[in-house]
Amino acid sequence: MAAVFRLSLYLRELTEFQKAGVKTVSSLRLSTGLGLTDVRVRKDLAYFGQFGYPGVGYRVDELITELKRILGTDRVWDVVLIGCGNLGSALAAYKGFRRQGFRIVGVFDIDPKKVGRRVGELTIQPMEELSKTTARTGARVGIISVPADQAQKVADQLVAAGIRGILNFACTALATPANVVENSVNLAIRLEQLTFQLRSLVQDSGA
Amino acid sequence: MAAVFRLSLYLRELTEFQKAGVKTVSSLRLSTGLGLTDVRVRKDLAYFGQFGYPGVGYRVDELITELKRILGTDRVWDVVLIGCGNLGSALAAYKGFRRQGFRIVGVFDIDPKKVGRRVGELTIQPMEELSKTTARTGARVGIISVPADQAQKVADQLVAAGIRGILNFACTALATPANVVENSVNLAIRLEQLTFQLRSLVQDSGA
Repeated sequence: MAAVFRLSLYLRELTEFQKAGVKTVSSLRLSTGLGLTDVRVRKDLAYFGQFGYPGVGYRVDELITELKRILGTDRVWDVVLIGCGNLGSALAAYKGFRRQGFRIVGVFDIDPKKVGRRVGELTIQPMEELSKTTARTGARVGIISVPADQAQKVADQLVAAGIRGILNFACTALATPANVVENSVNLAIRLEQLTFQLRSLVQDSGA
Repeated sequence: MAAVFRLSLYLRELTEFQKAGVKTVSSLRLSTGLGLTDVRVRKDLAYFGQFGYPGVGYRVDELITELKRILGTDRVWDVVLIGCGNLGSALAAYKGFRRQGFRIVGVFDIDPKKVGRRVGELTIQPMEELSKTTARTGARVGIISVPADQAQKVADQLVAAGIRGILNFACTALATPANVVENSVNLAIRLEQLTFQLRSLVQDSGA
């Protein structure tokens, strides 16, 4: 849903304005740094509510509050993370998540050698404890950072444990029930899309 | 470009068929696991060339070779990585990149305390050595994993050093010249998009 993606961009731009002490912005000013038209901004925002004031524009603080509410980041989401390899460990320690209201409350791995080790402030648990941890914490979001061939099994375990939203870093498509939302971050595909464009650009330079 | 994204998906599906010993596939068989129609598959592939054989379908090995060529992953791309925090270190060690033909040939950080440390098989270099390394290796791809407020400066340095493709993990939009391609992986935005969908799903459960 492209409009929702743009809400995320508006939120970031507004946060910059807030830091700079700006109190109100027009749709034109909000659109410029993002390479969008002011019409686009007004249409996107109007779809989600009545936020502008005639002759004033948008009140920065107020619109930030509204956008966070719409995007669901006005609250803390408890998150479990499965797969504590390099990427998983980095994600568990990633401060950006906490800033956005995502608190990692459990880290898990199938490898008995990893269980018991520390990742940041958490101790790696065995998969058998997943349901207990989600029940105790009420976690509804899971991050999958396991190899592709284990991802579907882990997704099934997450769903069985009550997880309703999955951020998937494994390089595979997941089958999940209709009442579970999934978002994939596939780094290899991202690089492939980059080289597709790059290939034609660098052909002339002989690189 | 959505068709190019689907080429990445076809390539993964074909690789699975190849592992299973399948020699030829129909557009229908290729489409099923991806939730697409066979017409979509035929149209996408026909846009890039004449790959199918009447009465046979697509030859798996041959189509994999062709798709890798189109996507630019039939060669090795030398990559430099800037920013050796948690995420950068994980990316530098990420084996998936190497499997796709991306070889990290230099890791850099502005923090003098990090310079000289090892990340996998590489030693962290100061930014001053960036141009020398790209010139020596011919690297054309750069990965940015620095905080948002440093990302534009790093992007400018990459462009000045001859980098033509940037994979950006910083939570900010970059301004780059027209002959440089950029692809952003914004983890915070990904989670926000997930919670937007999740918010309505879990409202009934009181979570």
